[in-house]
Amino acid sequence: MTFTAQILTLYPEMFPGPLGTSLAGRAMEEGKWACDTINPREFATDKHRSVDDTPAGGGAGMVLRADIMAAAVDHALEKQENAPILAMTPRGKPLTQARVREIASGPGVTIICGRFEGFDERLFDARDIEQVSIGDYVLSGGEMGALVLLDACIRLLPGVMGASSSGDDESFEHGTLEYPQYTRPQKWEGRIIPEVLRSGDHAKIDAWRKQRAEEDTRLRRPDLWERHRDGPDQSPSGAQEKDKDKE
Amino acid sequence: MTFTAQILTLYPEMFPGPLGTSLAGRAMEEGKWACDTINPREFATDKHRSVDDTPAGGGAGMVLRADIMAAAVDHALEKQENAPILAMTPRGKPLTQARVREIASGPGVTIICGRFEGFDERLFDARDIEQVSIGDYVLSGGEMGALVLLDACIRLLPGVMGASSSGDDESFEHGTLEYPQYTRPQKWEGRIIPEVLRSGDHAKIDAWRKQRAEEDTRLRRPDLWERHRDGPDQSPSGAQEKDKDKE
Repeated sequence: MTFTAQILTLYPEMFPGPLGTSLAGRAMEEGKWACDTINPREFATDKHRSVDDTPAGGGAGMVLRADIMAAAVDHALEKQENAPILAMTPRGKPLTQARVREIASGPGVTIICGRFEGFDERLFDARDIEQVSIGDYVLSGGEMGALVLLDACIRLLPGVMGASSSGDDESFEHGTLEYPQYTRPQKWEGRIIPEVLRSGDHAKIDAWRKQRAEEDTRLRRPDLWERHRDGPDQSPSGAQEKDKDKE
Repeated sequence: MTFTAQILTLYPEMFPGPLGTSLAGRAMEEGKWACDTINPREFATDKHRSVDDTPAGGGAGMVLRADIMAAAVDHALEKQENAPILAMTPRGKPLTQARVREIASGPGVTIICGRFEGFDERLFDARDIEQVSIGDYVLSGGEMGALVLLDACIRLLPGVMGASSSGDDESFEHGTLEYPQYTRPQKWEGRIIPEVLRSGDHAKIDAWRKQRAEEDTRLRRPDLWERHRDGPDQSPSGAQEKDKDKE
């Protein structure tokens, strides 16, 4: 089965972009995933093909119109009705590795990329759209977020990473950061690989890695550590009320 | 002054990639920023130009060698000594809009993109490198993170967004999410733009927007809301011990 991404964007030339190279590029060539773009301008109703208008109540910038964006979303739904529809916006729920795994295990995803000052809020009242944020910073548009989300999904598709590297040991897969890694040369600039890693004692190595993963998580990410300690069934603190019902 | 990005990557063909189009592409043409890539393979010492080796202590995947990566970093430092050096890794400190603003106000940035199972940890002991994460998910490499970081910086460079849209009202700039936006048509699918936004009373509109920004932050992002309420001088909960000293 081919994982299919539909991307609603004013900049279709950005896709597949960096996803056309490396791991994702090879997976695309092998038919493991596919990428279609839909330009909301095709659903504009005036001769200028406008998709945006000034903010109600005043303010800088332009807002993406609910009617035009909804028409583009409805078109995407007709083509792929069982995939979740995500809108990339800083107002969204923070993306997690758990949500990435869920999306990657499905038939595909439709991603709406914002631009300018964002979307007319009525779009989210009128359609079943999951608002997603990739982090607490502001981008020029949702396109980068779409690329990040797809990159995270594609590496998890069957056969993409190969059996030897299932990604199970990665950061966030067990609620902690990954342990630190070392490789040859054994001694570099006076620094030696920790002795336990050279011991060949796998039980000891596993214990050391677990301890270092927990220690680094506690020091670097107290927020993550708190959730990890509270148990894996806790929903992330960033959960949106609306989305909680779905999960 | 041209903001200069140096990117250490095994996939130089990914840059500028999507940053060559739209807002960032125009800014690049106008000389507001520039982008150089450095391939760590140029610093490899064997005939296969290897940059990685198997993890000490066993495990799947490959680890980027400290000696090769340090040689590439030292080369980048010679070319641009006053820019911060960032490594994109899920073990890093979460990127914030405040850090983006700091980086964008400087001369540029050097970004090290990880691949495979990450970096030999000794690289971070031996060189002054800021480990940065763009979010709690795993990507195929640091390249997407580098694109995200640069996109966030470039839009803040002088003259890129234009005076009318300084970005001051955006999500995270005041520690909250942005308020919801509306635009024409006034009525769509039975949904009407909130009356206050049509009132022309700017004091009322500002009050409504502030209240909605706070309400949405509280409901959608209790973590952000807690930090906002505790005051703007609180360091983010995700601060790394090492990096705290620098700030």
